[in-house]
Amino acid sequence: MTAELQKIAFIGTGVMGLSMAGHLMAAGHRLTIHTRTKARAEPLLAQGALWAKSPRDAADGADLAISMVGFPEDVEATHLGSAGTLQASRPPSVIIDMTTSRPSLAIRIADVAIAKNIQSLDAPVSGGDIGARNATLSIMVGGERAAFEEALPILSIMGKNVVHQGAAGTGQHTKMVNQILIASTMIGVCEGLLYARKAGLDPLKVIQSVGAGAAGSWSINNLGPRMVNRDFNPGFYVEHFIKDLGIALDEASRATLALPGLELARQLYEAVRAQGHGRLGTQALLLALEKINGMDAPLETASRND
Amino acid sequence: MTAELQKIAFIGTGVMGLSMAGHLMAAGHRLTIHTRTKARAEPLLAQGALWAKSPRDAADGADLAISMVGFPEDVEATHLGSAGTLQASRPPSVIIDMTTSRPSLAIRIADVAIAKNIQSLDAPVSGGDIGARNATLSIMVGGERAAFEEALPILSIMGKNVVHQGAAGTGQHTKMVNQILIASTMIGVCEGLLYARKAGLDPLKVIQSVGAGAAGSWSINNLGPRMVNRDFNPGFYVEHFIKDLGIALDEASRATLALPGLELARQLYEAVRAQGHGRLGTQALLLALEKINGMDAPLETASRND
Repeated sequence: MTAELQKIAFIGTGVMGLSMAGHLMAAGHRLTIHTRTKARAEPLLAQGALWAKSPRDAADGADLAISMVGFPEDVEATHLGSAGTLQASRPPSVIIDMTTSRPSLAIRIADVAIAKNIQSLDAPVSGGDIGARNATLSIMVGGERAAFEEALPILSIMGKNVVHQGAAGTGQHTKMVNQILIASTMIGVCEGLLYARKAGLDPLKVIQSVGAGAAGSWSINNLGPRMVNRDFNPGFYVEHFIKDLGIALDEASRATLALPGLELARQLYEAVRAQGHGRLGTQALLLALEKINGMDAPLETASRND
Repeated sequence: MTAELQKIAFIGTGVMGLSMAGHLMAAGHRLTIHTRTKARAEPLLAQGALWAKSPRDAADGADLAISMVGFPEDVEATHLGSAGTLQASRPPSVIIDMTTSRPSLAIRIADVAIAKNIQSLDAPVSGGDIGARNATLSIMVGGERAAFEEALPILSIMGKNVVHQGAAGTGQHTKMVNQILIASTMIGVCEGLLYARKAGLDPLKVIQSVGAGAAGSWSINNLGPRMVNRDFNPGFYVEHFIKDLGIALDEASRATLALPGLELARQLYEAVRAQGHGRLGTQALLLALEKINGMDAPLETASRND
């Protein structure tokens, strides 16, 4: 690790942010945390992180400010709001939003930041809770190359595949490509596992066969076994994924691009949410496809009336 | 390699079969070849393989007979036809069909074979032309365990992930799961690359970011770069893939299983074929999605009339 020890503002310690901030602390950096629900930050505060009551306060006097929040509205408030990082009286030299958010918002934040002589990077990640925990995230970075190089030692603590994609917004656009890939892949994974069940196959043995060849994907190899074991705990929330698919479809529509697979995925994920599963992991897509096919859990109480 | 040297009938030396048979010869086994177009077998004949004018003749006196042909009709003719392997006067002890074919046909062949005291395995593969060339295929095997164990040393020469899935037909069912996974994954790959192009991203840099994380798949990492380089040469033919998707949809329908992603993929691949690209590789799906979006090659001659 060649990074000098720095003072870092970290905003947002949900499933992903908590692991990511933990790696920065473990590397010796001094963190000041702000997150919506303070209790979520307790593990870091117990290890010596400081608490700030707003993103602005967290960023005040920090070398850089990192955000990993939920929705574009949160990103906007975190950086552009009246209590946002860009309002700090001693602002950081670089702000890095690692949330998956709108490319156009990333460009707007970069414009506002540059007017204040602050660098801004959009640096969304892929790899889910496992990648965050193991610091193996893929990090897709948009923004000025100089800022990318300044931030690289810090980003490299959280991920192992950190790629500068181009100007502001290109990190988010790359993440949209990432989500487009996942969306259709997940449909295939669920449909494949339902087919396997109907055919009477042993699903884990099937994954052993198909996961290593041309049908292999991170999704089948990591989320497939969770589905088989009925583990729908969130690595990544359905409702966050629906947000991402909405951004991707909006961007595609703006570019007059028809993406029928992505549209189908959005519809199916909406069904998952409609069934009350928005706070489960993305592998809960299986539940919607089971329900469509009458393969969901049998009714607890069959009617005995007549 | 612990396999005793054997006399093997090999039927079908197309893109895949040629590499697979080549590995068996390189391991020292004696091959007798039959294939529809003799010229396709020349590289093997030049290395000393014998030629037979029918599957029956190839199988006569062989220890085992392997087929890697095109369509279920070909599989049926190869093994059950009047010039098929099961008509050999000195039949092999095991016949192995490695073509992707109907599960119900695999069961029928096994039934006919067993009545003649011959073992039958369905052992379709995944891994495409690259997997065949590098002997890294995933091989999914259905049939009696004793036959599986007898064939394992031979199968292990052609692949590195050889899994016994269960009774006759389960190899083919597992391969259907494989194709279901690929079908939707390919939609995601094409849509992701079109989005990247519209967003002005560098597509190879995008693959570098997304291929290593939660969006990673064999398809994006192997076929994605071919699409970027406009290389639509067949590793696996579109028309063969459409055959497979048809089998999977037939089987799903028989099991009253709705698979909307697979249906969409079939429709899009039909469009590829309708556009005259049935003999290109499966990565030609990109061409259909480009055409839908008016992103195909510009017209050569714009009208200058009026």
